[in-house]
Amino acid sequence: MKPYSDALLGELFDQLFPVCRSITGPGLRQSLGLFAEWMPLSFEQVPTGTDIFDWTVPSEWHIHGARLTGPDGRVIVDFADNNLHVVNYAEPVDRHMSLQALQPHLYSLPDLPQAVPYVTSYYRRNWGFCLADDQRQRLSDGDYHVWIDSEFVDGGLDFAHCLVPGESEQEILLSSYLCHPSMANNELSGPLVLLGLYHRIRSWPRRRYSYRFLLNPETIGSLCFLSRHHEHLSKVLAGGLVLTCLGGPSQGLSYKASRQGKGLIDRVVQHVMAHDDSWSCRPFTPEHGSDERQYCSPGFNLPVGNITRTTYGSYPGYHNSLDDKQFMDIAQVVNSIDRIESLLRSVEIGGVFANTKPYGEPHLSKYALYPTENSSKTRSMSADCLEDGRRRLNLVLQVLSHCDGTRCLVELADTLGMPLEQLSPVVETLEHNRLLCAGSACR
Amino acid sequence: MKPYSDALLGELFDQLFPVCRSITGPGLRQSLGLFAEWMPLSFEQVPTGTDIFDWTVPSEWHIHGARLTGPDGRVIVDFADNNLHVVNYAEPVDRHMSLQALQPHLYSLPDLPQAVPYVTSYYRRNWGFCLADDQRQRLSDGDYHVWIDSEFVDGGLDFAHCLVPGESEQEILLSSYLCHPSMANNELSGPLVLLGLYHRIRSWPRRRYSYRFLLNPETIGSLCFLSRHHEHLSKVLAGGLVLTCLGGPSQGLSYKASRQGKGLIDRVVQHVMAHDDSWSCRPFTPEHGSDERQYCSPGFNLPVGNITRTTYGSYPGYHNSLDDKQFMDIAQVVNSIDRIESLLRSVEIGGVFANTKPYGEPHLSKYALYPTENSSKTRSMSADCLEDGRRRLNLVLQVLSHCDGTRCLVELADTLGMPLEQLSPVVETLEHNRLLCAGSACR
Amino acid sequence: MKPYSDALLGELFDQLFPVCRSITGPGLRQSLGLFAEWMPLSFEQVPTGTDIFDWTVPSEWHIHGARLTGPDGRVIVDFADNNLHVVNYAEPVDRHMSLQALQPHLYSLPDLPQAVPYVTSYYRRNWGFCLADDQRQRLSDGDYHVWIDSEFVDGGLDFAHCLVPGESEQEILLSSYLCHPSMANNELSGPLVLLGLYHRIRSWPRRRYSYRFLLNPETIGSLCFLSRHHEHLSKVLAGGLVLTCLGGPSQGLSYKASRQGKGLIDRVVQHVMAHDDSWSCRPFTPEHGSDERQYCSPGFNLPVGNITRTTYGSYPGYHNSLDDKQFMDIAQVVNSIDRIESLLRSVEIGGVFANTKPYGEPHLSKYALYPTENSSKTRSMSADCLEDGRRRLNLVLQVLSHCDGTRCLVELADTLGMPLEQLSPVVETLEHNRLLCAGSACR
Repeated sequence: MKPYSDALLGELFDQLFPVCRSITGPGLRQSLGLFAEWMPLSFEQVPTGTDIFDWTVPSEWHIHGARLTGPDGRVIVDFADNNLHVVNYAEPVDRHMSLQALQPHLYSLPDLPQAVPYVTSYYRRNWGFCLADDQRQRLSDGDYHVWIDSEFVDGGLDFAHCLVPGESEQEILLSSYLCHPSMANNELSGPLVLLGLYHRIRSWPRRRYSYRFLLNPETIGSLCFLSRHHEHLSKVLAGGLVLTCLGGPSQGLSYKASRQGKGLIDRVVQHVMAHDDSWSCRPFTPEHGSDERQYCSPGFNLPVGNITRTTYGSYPGYHNSLDDKQFMDIAQVVNSIDRIESLLRSVEIGGVFANTKPYGEPHLSKYALYPTENSSKTRSMSADCLEDGRRRLNLVLQVLSHCDGTRCLVELADTLGMPLEQLSPVVETLEHNRLLCAGSACR
Repeated sequence: MKPYSDALLGELFDQLFPVCRSITGPGLRQSLGLFAEWMPLSFEQVPTGTDIFDWTVPSEWHIHGARLTGPDGRVIVDFADNNLHVVNYAEPVDRHMSLQALQPHLYSLPDLPQAVPYVTSYYRRNWGFCLADDQRQRLSDGDYHVWIDSEFVDGGLDFAHCLVPGESEQEILLSSYLCHPSMANNELSGPLVLLGLYHRIRSWPRRRYSYRFLLNPETIGSLCFLSRHHEHLSKVLAGGLVLTCLGGPSQGLSYKASRQGKGLIDRVVQHVMAHDDSWSCRPFTPEHGSDERQYCSPGFNLPVGNITRTTYGSYPGYHNSLDDKQFMDIAQVVNSIDRIESLLRSVEIGGVFANTKPYGEPHLSKYALYPTENSSKTRSMSADCLEDGRRRLNLVLQVLSHCDGTRCLVELADTLGMPLEQLSPVVETLEHNRLLCAGSACR
Repeated sequence: MKPYSDALLGELFDQLFPVCRSITGPGLRQSLGLFAEWMPLSFEQVPTGTDIFDWTVPSEWHIHGARLTGPDGRVIVDFADNNLHVVNYAEPVDRHMSLQALQPHLYSLPDLPQAVPYVTSYYRRNWGFCLADDQRQRLSDGDYHVWIDSEFVDGGLDFAHCLVPGESEQEILLSSYLCHPSMANNELSGPLVLLGLYHRIRSWPRRRYSYRFLLNPETIGSLCFLSRHHEHLSKVLAGGLVLTCLGGPSQGLSYKASRQGKGLIDRVVQHVMAHDDSWSCRPFTPEHGSDERQYCSPGFNLPVGNITRTTYGSYPGYHNSLDDKQFMDIAQVVNSIDRIESLLRSVEIGGVFANTKPYGEPHLSKYALYPTENSSKTRSMSADCLEDGRRRLNLVLQVLSHCDGTRCLVELADTLGMPLEQLSPVVETLEHNRLLCAGSACR
C-alpha cells in the first residue's frame, strides 16, 4: 500500500476522472483498483445473471469507442474526448441515418446549452449520444454515421470493502459509490472522502466501534453487498453513512436521516446541530438520494443516513459535464474529511454504555473519585479546586446514573445541555476504572 | 329480497314508525323483519333468563293496549294513538285510583308542554303513562281508570346481522339499534342509514375489508351479540361504527372516537377532518352514547366509534314525541349514507399494507414504473410529462418505503399532507403488480 | 410502647439532639432505641467487614472524648460541649504539635465565622477538630495538645424498620436517616416526621397499601437495607419517600422525583401540584440528595423520591452548628406530617384499579347505581336531585371505563381536571359492590 496523505488526493482524482465507469465492467474495476493502492480493499464479484432480491445482475458493459459523424464527414462528438458523449450502458450500433431518425437518440440540456448531460440506460437496451445543446442546434440535415463499439459480456458486478477493527464488533459503515463516469462532486468526492476517513480512523489511538469502508456501484451494487452481508449487518450495524457530493462550494454539511430516524448517528447529528449551526439535517425520503435508499428499505431498515455538502440536484452541474474538478475543490473534500471525522468522534462517545456497578452508587473513594472529606467550604481546599472537583464528581454521578445499558450518552449530553466531547474525559476515567463499559447494543 | 333504492327509504320509514318496539318482543321482531325484506339478515335469539356478562336477558314484553280514562269517562291517553303514551316495558295494571295516587305514574315535560316523553322502566317493575304537560295540568281530581294490558313472556332477545365479504377476513362492523318505539332521528335514522350503506358497499367493485351489518336492541342487545361473537370480533375487527341520530338538520357529521382512540377509523376520521371541516370529532366518553359503550368497555376495548348528525341530547325532541319524520328528513338520511360511504372508501385505503419486496427497492423498470432513462431535462420528453412521471414515481417510492406491514397508509397521507384518495391509484397499481398487499393486521 | 402524640415530639427531640451519632456505633443504636419506644421497630445489624455491593461495612466508631488544648493549657474545644467539634469517625490521637502542623486538621467556615462545621472522614483514616472561624483566627503560635479518645471496633451497622400492613402487599416505603450528630433540620426532622406518619397511618380505618417505616444511617445504611430486602422491594414497592430537612421555615414542601419519574408517587405529586401551589417538584438528580440516590441507582431504579421543606444546601446552617432547634421548628415538623399524610391519602386513591366486570357495562341497576327510569326531565324528580344523580352516575361510568387494571386513577383525575379526593366516594362505593378492586401492579 502506498503511503497516504491528504495532499495526494488531487493526483488520485486526476487518475480517476477520465476512467469510463459504469455499474459493471472494466472502468469500475480499474477505479476500485486505484483505491486499492491506498487502502486494503477486499474485492467481491457477483456473477452476471445472479438474482439479487428483485433484481438480476446485468452483463458487464465494455466500451471501446463511440463516435457520431456528420454529413460532411466531420466528427461531431467522440467518446475519446469525453466519455459522457455516449449514453452509459449503450448497446453497439454502426449505421447511417437521417437527422430526424437520429434525434430521439440525442440528449442535450436546453437550459444549459454548453453542458454535456450524463445519461444512462441500464435496464432497457438503447443507444444514444449526449452533446451540448448549442452544438445540437447547429446540426444540419443529411446522412449521419452513428458508431458505438460496445459489448455486453458475462462477468460480474464488482465491489470492495475493508474493516478497521475496534473494541466492539459493532460496526459503523461508511460507503460510497463508484459508477459514474467523468464527474467530480457527484462521483469522486465521496470515495475520496472515504479514503481520507479510512486513514484518519485507523490512526486513532482507540476505536470503540469497528469501521467498515465500502465502495460499490450505486443501487445494484449496494443490493449485491446487502445480499451477501445483510445478516451480518443486521447483527452488528450501529450506524452508517453514505458519502456523496462532498466537494462542492457549500459551507456546511447536510445529513439525511435514516428511515428509522432514531439510530445512533441520527441522534448524534441532532445533538451536534444544536451546538454547531454549520450542520443541517434533512428528513429521510425514499425519493432522492443514494444507497441509503437500499439500506433503509423496509425489509432492512438499517440506521444508515447520508452526508452531502453540495447536494445532488441542487447545483447546475448535477449529472452533466459542468461537474468537474473546478467545481469540486479538493480543499473542500479535505474539509469534509475533517468534519466527518469530528462527527464520528462524537459518535464514539454518544452510544450506549453500562454502569458495571449499578446497584447503589459505587464506592467512589476507592477509585479516588470522591472528596475524602465532606467539607465543602472549610479552609482546607481552595474554592476553585473544590468547584472543579465538585463539577467532575457531578459528571461522574450523572454518567453512572444515566448509563443503565439501555440509554445512549447523547441523551445525557442533551439533558445536561453540554457538547458530547465534554463527557469524554469522565467516560474514559470510568472506563479505566472498569466502572463503565461500552454497551453491546450501541444502536 | 326486494330491489332497493334510496328513494324507497321514506316508505320503509312509514312502515316502521308506528311499530311499538322495545328491547324484546314482537315489535322488535316485526321491525327486524321489515329490514330483512331489503337485506339478507340472519336472525339470532338469546333465550329469556340467559346470563350475559353481568346481565340477564329479560322476558319479552307483549303490549296489547293501554288507556288512561278520566273521572268523566273520557279517554285521556290511549296507546293506540301513540305508543309513547305507555311507559315502555310497563307491567300490567287495571284499577281505579285518585289523581294524587296516579301522579307518581305520570310523566310529562314541563319545559316542553306539548311533547309526550319517552320513558322506559326495564329493570324495575313499574307502570305509568306519558303525556303532554299541558294536558296533565288540566287533569282534575276524581277517580281515574288505569289499564295496561301487557304481559311478560318467556321468549328471547332478538338481533340480526349479515356479512358482505371482502378480500380480507378483517371486518368493519356497522351497527345500529332498533328498540325505541315511535321516534325518528333517535331510532329509525340509524337503521335506515345502515340499510343504505349495505347496498352501497355490496355494489363496490372490490372491498379490501369484509363488512358486517348488525341491528339489535341497544345495550343488552349488543351485549348479547358480543357474548356470542366477541372472540371472532377480537380476531378480525378492524373498526366499527355505531350509526345513530343521522337524520336531523345539522350540516356536518360528528364522530365519537373509540376508547382506545387509535383504531383505523379513529385515524381516518382525524385525517378526513383535516381536509373537510364538515366532519367533527368528539372524544370517547362512557357517559353518553350508544352501543360503542359496550364495544369499548375495558374488557373488549374494541375500535368502535359512533357517528351522528344531530346528536342525542342536543335537540329538544330528544326522547320525546317531537322526534318525528318532520324533524328527521329522509334527504338528510341519504346525505348521511353518502358521507359515511365516502368515509369508508378512505378507510379502505387507509389501513396497513405491506411491501411484498421489502429488501431494497423493487426493480421498478420491470413493472414499467420507472423512467427507462435517467435523463430529467433533456429534449426527449416534455417537461409536464416528466413532472407527472416523477410525481407518480415519488408516490410509488413513498408508498413502498412506508408500507412495512406495521404502519397504516393514513400515516403516510398525513405526512405527505395529501388526502388519502390521492394515494388510491398508486396503491392499486402496486397491488396489481403484486408489489403491495393489504396487511393482515389492519387495526 | 409509649402512648404517642404530636405534642411529645419536642421532648423526643431534646433527648435525641445531644447524642453523637455516626454511620455506625453506640450513638446510632441509642437513637434508634429512643424511636423504638414509640414505634415497634425491628432491628437488623450487618457485621463489620461485610461486602455490600461495591462497599464494605466499616468498623463501629466509639468516641469517648476529644479535646484541643492550647499552649496556655486552656481548653479550646471540647467534644463534651458539642459533638460537632470532633471530625466524625476521627481516629484516635494524643500528642503535642505546633499550630502550623495542626492547621490541616482544623475545620472552620470563613463565611460563617460563628458556626462549627460538620465534617466527616469515613473512608480515609484522619482526625481533626471543627471550630468557629472567629475562634480559629485568634489562635496563637505555640504547643497544642490534641487528644481524641476514639476506637474502631468490630461490630456492625444498625438499621431498624417496621411494617403497617394494608389490604395489599404492595408497599409504600417511608425512610429517613439517623447518622448525623447534633443537627436539627438536616437530621432529626426526618425521623420525627416518620414517627408522626407512622401514628397517623396506623390509625387510618383502612389502608390499600402496606407502609414500611425505615430508619438507617445514610448511604451505606440504605445499601445494607437494600442488600437484604431489594428482592422483596422489587416485587412489592409501589413507591417510596425519603424524608429529610422537614422542619425549616419554608412554606411549601418540595418533592424530588424518582429516577424513572413515572412511579405512582411521582404522578400523584404532579397531580397534587396542579391543584395546590404550595407543593413544588424537583427533577431527579444523582448529584445531591439522600438515600433516594441509592434506591434510584440504575440497577434498582425503584420509584423512590424525597420530600424536603427547607432543602439541604439551601440554608446557611446546612451541615453546621447553626442547624439547631431554633432553626427547626417543631410546629413545622407537625405541619410536614399533616401535609405528607394528605399526600399519602391521594396516593391511596391514585393507583391502579381494575373493573371486575370489564365486559360491557355492569348492570348498574342491580347495585342501585343507575336511575331506575330513563326520564331525565319529567316531574318525578327534582332537577337538583337528578343533576346530582347524573353526576355520580357519570363518575361511576368514568371510573369503570378507565380502570382496566393498567391505568392509574391519577390519570383519570387529570383527564377530568378534578382533585383525586373527589373520586374517593365513587371508588369506595364500587369497591363495596365488588365492581372495582385495587390492582396488584400499583406502580
